[in-house]
Amino acid sequence: MTDNNNQMKSQGLSYSVIGTGAIGGFYGGRLARSGRTVRFLLHSDYEHVRANGLQVDSCDGDFRIFPAEAYRSVEEMPKSDVVLVCLKSVNNPFLARLLPPLLEEDTVVVLIQNGIGLEADLQKVFPGLAIVAGLAFICTSKTGPGHIVHQCYGGINLGNYTCCEARFQSLLEDFRAAGLNAKGVPYLEARWKKAVWNMPFNGMTVALNTSTDQLLRHPATRQLIYSQMLEVIGAAQALGVTALTPAFADRMIQMTDEMTPYRPSMKLDFDHRRPMEIDYLYTRPIAEAQAAGFEMPKLSMLESELRFLQSQYIPEERISG
Amino acid sequence: MTDNNNQMKSQGLSYSVIGTGAIGGFYGGRLARSGRTVRFLLHSDYEHVRANGLQVDSCDGDFRIFPAEAYRSVEEMPKSDVVLVCLKSVNNPFLARLLPPLLEEDTVVVLIQNGIGLEADLQKVFPGLAIVAGLAFICTSKTGPGHIVHQCYGGINLGNYTCCEARFQSLLEDFRAAGLNAKGVPYLEARWKKAVWNMPFNGMTVALNTSTDQLLRHPATRQLIYSQMLEVIGAAQALGVTALTPAFADRMIQMTDEMTPYRPSMKLDFDHRRPMEIDYLYTRPIAEAQAAGFEMPKLSMLESELRFLQSQYIPEERISG
Repeated sequence: MTDNNNQMKSQGLSYSVIGTGAIGGFYGGRLARSGRTVRFLLHSDYEHVRANGLQVDSCDGDFRIFPAEAYRSVEEMPKSDVVLVCLKSVNNPFLARLLPPLLEEDTVVVLIQNGIGLEADLQKVFPGLAIVAGLAFICTSKTGPGHIVHQCYGGINLGNYTCCEARFQSLLEDFRAAGLNAKGVPYLEARWKKAVWNMPFNGMTVALNTSTDQLLRHPATRQLIYSQMLEVIGAAQALGVTALTPAFADRMIQMTDEMTPYRPSMKLDFDHRRPMEIDYLYTRPIAEAQAAGFEMPKLSMLESELRFLQSQYIPEERISG
Repeated sequence: MTDNNNQMKSQGLSYSVIGTGAIGGFYGGRLARSGRTVRFLLHSDYEHVRANGLQVDSCDGDFRIFPAEAYRSVEEMPKSDVVLVCLKSVNNPFLARLLPPLLEEDTVVVLIQNGIGLEADLQKVFPGLAIVAGLAFICTSKTGPGHIVHQCYGGINLGNYTCCEARFQSLLEDFRAAGLNAKGVPYLEARWKKAVWNMPFNGMTVALNTSTDQLLRHPATRQLIYSQMLEVIGAAQALGVTALTPAFADRMIQMTDEMTPYRPSMKLDFDHRRPMEIDYLYTRPIAEAQAAGFEMPKLSMLESELRFLQSQYIPEERISG
């Protein structure tokens, strides 16, 4: 890339969105609305979005991207400066095939996904790739073809895994220019902080077929959720994330008390008989903690329960992808 | 009591059965069939048993006790040498009222119930009482009024808590004379040995709405059950039961592999929307282990899950008894 190119791109990067669902549709939509070039990869929604654009009904104001740059395959898409990966992490094995057509030499891939170990696994497949962790704090869902409903929140934290600093800052600027609350955060700490909420609530709402508010209402499960949060914090500390202390568990409990009753993404997946993100939300962080000498007995038990429930209730052909 | 009395009673003791359900109906029925005096306390089944007797359909041969000595209240019952308590342990608070009318000076109370701490709690209410722990190894159920179906097994282990040795031996003799495989066992070891099976399987079949064979079929839950068994064994060892070693967990897994698929009593209780024996099966052993410095994280989590599920699915008025 030439300096001239860089200068042009300082006016904004070009984006490809892999996984145009609740997350990809929202963030991609906001970037497109702010004037960025955003290319959306679509499957079943392709014809609809081609004809009608992408509709985002949002607490911050509804909008429609029309026409939307819709593509049916990565082979048809131009290369972009940034690839936003907004797939469920169960589909990450497909990235080995999906990403190469989209990558320029300095393309940065942003994994807006939940879990631990995503970046390391992708880096193994693409050793030279610039990778950024994206942590979305948002309530959003896809309600129909090309139709996203954004209920509340919407902030995004970006953690620099292996991106050059200049590109990372451009990325932050683009998200902010799109009116989003975007923050640069320490990568590992950010991933584990999110896990403090995700690991207890995602699995427990599935295991007990309930919602966040019910879990916190009963003293037994409130205490259990809290102790599971402490397991995550202990694991993070064992892995060197010293900024994370038990006080963060108290904050997360309090925050959830103040939230509207909520079904986390894993609960939605389970209720729709879709495979659950057990690998990156449970198996991987538990294994990394264990390798550092820290056990997570309650979250290990939850992992086992989820594996069992998935085997009983999710069709086999969906699990294999 | 005179020597003369004792001699007469060496021909067999008299029995009262509190809780004429699957367990009380079977063991009381067998003792009655062998010629012992057995008085049954009944509630809703009283009229039926009065008119038709007690029917036991058993893998060891069907039989009927007719007439059966049926009573509607403890106040109407004669005092007995032995009281077999076959209530669900959730009803043990009622023993303070139920037992006194039945007790002679040397009456022994046999708690044929699951759990840890039952004897200690009863002893607090009746400091001088002779108490024996009864551990039933049996598949049996009550299928209708005065109608017991005994599927398989039927052995009973008796652990002497605070009974004089002579009476304890007479008790064993009576059970054996009834054709039952009755063994005298060390009290505390026997209670904890049974907990090795009970604590994992009772709760997990409820938490995951499944049966013993399904839990052992999936590698994740098979490993989880095993690790929960090790928690029970660790707790028992911390409480001085040194005879219990991890090898016993392997035996219990193997035994369960060979059993027919089974819904434990707690699963039956939950499915029938009856209160579950959480206190004596979970809360109490966990607390006793903790007091001895041993944590049971996975079974504590299971306890919390059961408390939550009970609050969601069991009618409040049933929980309060």
